[in-house]
Amino acid sequence: MTGENIQVCLAARPTGLPKSSDWEIRRTAIPEAGADQFVAEVLYVSLDPAMRGWMNDAKSYIEPVEIGAVMRAGGIARVRESNLAEFSVGDHVFCFTGVQQFVVSDGKGVQKVDASVAPLPTYLGALGMTGLTAYFGLLDVAEVKPEDTVVISGAAGAVGSVAGQIARIQGCRTVGIAGGQEKCAYLVDELGLDAAIDYKADNLRESLREHCPKGIDVFFDNVGGETLNTVLPLMRMHGRIAICGAISQYNNTGPVVGPSNYLSLLVSRARMEGFVVFDYQKQFPQAFKAMGGWLAEGKLKSKEQIEEGIDQFPSVLLKLFEGGNFGKLILKNTAAF
Amino acid sequence: MTGENIQVCLAARPTGLPKSSDWEIRRTAIPEAGADQFVAEVLYVSLDPAMRGWMNDAKSYIEPVEIGAVMRAGGIARVRESNLAEFSVGDHVFCFTGVQQFVVSDGKGVQKVDASVAPLPTYLGALGMTGLTAYFGLLDVAEVKPEDTVVISGAAGAVGSVAGQIARIQGCRTVGIAGGQEKCAYLVDELGLDAAIDYKADNLRESLREHCPKGIDVFFDNVGGETLNTVLPLMRMHGRIAICGAISQYNNTGPVVGPSNYLSLLVSRARMEGFVVFDYQKQFPQAFKAMGGWLAEGKLKSKEQIEEGIDQFPSVLLKLFEGGNFGKLILKNTAAF
Repeated sequence: MTGENIQVCLAARPTGLPKSSDWEIRRTAIPEAGADQFVAEVLYVSLDPAMRGWMNDAKSYIEPVEIGAVMRAGGIARVRESNLAEFSVGDHVFCFTGVQQFVVSDGKGVQKVDASVAPLPTYLGALGMTGLTAYFGLLDVAEVKPEDTVVISGAAGAVGSVAGQIARIQGCRTVGIAGGQEKCAYLVDELGLDAAIDYKADNLRESLREHCPKGIDVFFDNVGGETLNTVLPLMRMHGRIAICGAISQYNNTGPVVGPSNYLSLLVSRARMEGFVVFDYQKQFPQAFKAMGGWLAEGKLKSKEQIEEGIDQFPSVLLKLFEGGNFGKLILKNTAAF
Repeated sequence: MTGENIQVCLAARPTGLPKSSDWEIRRTAIPEAGADQFVAEVLYVSLDPAMRGWMNDAKSYIEPVEIGAVMRAGGIARVRESNLAEFSVGDHVFCFTGVQQFVVSDGKGVQKVDASVAPLPTYLGALGMTGLTAYFGLLDVAEVKPEDTVVISGAAGAVGSVAGQIARIQGCRTVGIAGGQEKCAYLVDELGLDAAIDYKADNLRESLREHCPKGIDVFFDNVGGETLNTVLPLMRMHGRIAICGAISQYNNTGPVVGPSNYLSLLVSRARMEGFVVFDYQKQFPQAFKAMGGWLAEGKLKSKEQIEEGIDQFPSVLLKLFEGGNFGKLILKNTAAF
């Protein structure tokens, strides 16, 4: 085979926001499949806030990316050579492709996806880890019930926009927090949330009190920092906070800001709980079924923002941390189309 | 009737540690029982860290004590005059007596206690709200299981010392955090904990790693602040933190210190949950039965530190916040003996 494989590799552990010198763009030969392997051409790569954590050399729910290694990423790829019986040339698969143009795999943990059921990028959005994170965070961790008032931070983001819609589908009063009028209008007009709060323009505390007159039963938090701290005293009795992430804190060079209002958990007999979507693997099929049904019925919308060029990863990633994305941020390997 | 009723009343809302000018010692006539009332002479008053919160004019799980009102307190009293059929002269009762020598009651929420079953102060300790707080916090909120490693902060305090013993009775590996060698020796030698850490002398993080080699499944937190923050990254998968209180923070004049390591909840899929013992009222009988049984069998020890004189309340209370008590702090109305 001829041609090259552009790979984005981690060159240094970032301090604060990852900068271009933290990356190395490597050009290697297109790999060939060994026995019991396949090679697939990457079509779309998922960009997620969690990636920032994977770059740190710290104990977490997954090993850090090693210096010099291809940056970890979930992605959709098309098999181009296979020595595995279960995978044929032309199959579309979801796996940890990494941020590169071609991936070699032994097939473990690889899921086939059907481009005739949903557009391929949707498998990185509502039908991907993103959607599953929203699904299990809301239904399992936060145990939402129809009578609940649910608040979602980062509500126009990939996970948040699905979480808001699932809460609405469950019959909850649903309030989203996002940055900017355009995102807020989208949450209410397109996704059908009951209200949206523009954290850049509105007084968050006053707006939450206005839109959640009975208080907040469930908070699905993607943001952390002052947002979490402002929500805590507004929690209702036996409220539940699902800690999905804390995008406001990932690029801190100083210590993370802890929620000084955490004693509200005592006042409200509330709980705050962390979760990681990979733990729910056995229940993925039931979630895919529910989410696929809602998508088909038009109850659930998947919004993706697709940027172009694997080698653009270093700059496109920053959009996640600067409020520059609107929906699920995906990088397209334009060379494959 | 002749004689006087010494009452300790809240004169001003304290900033930081309550000082003597925040209190007024009032001397009034001994009250008489109206129709449907009884009057009881207070014997023992319970002193609790939670009292500090009751002095603040802030939303909490219970109304603040009003300025000018007798300070709220649970206590044991002996009925001396009764117009209620259920209460006879000489009966011993537990109720919110307030910090005073005589209390008038309509009988609501009053529980009779039997001095022949346990010494009266025990009804403010292991068999009182203190013991019940430990019981429900550990068994219901934290759901301890025999294989768990359990860490307790404020372990030599009233709630902590009972919590540690209950964890030990459940078969858990139990580690207490307390201040000073005397308290630590007591935890291990007298209460049978597996280990005790002197937070004043030891490196808390290193000691926790040494005594909890597998990590921490359950943290029963009475202290908050840096203690909570140090424990968070050591939590095991699906760990549980029961937030009972945060004595390190109650007299802060600045903002409460939030746990900057709260994202460890995500890494460990752990939860942090607040609770208030009053919510478990319906289950008190089962708890009294279990705790009474353990006391009778000698498995559970109740340690009280009894100080003298209702009018000494303002200074005795401070012992709670200065590490000056060892076991349940109780004030005895010496005039009644």
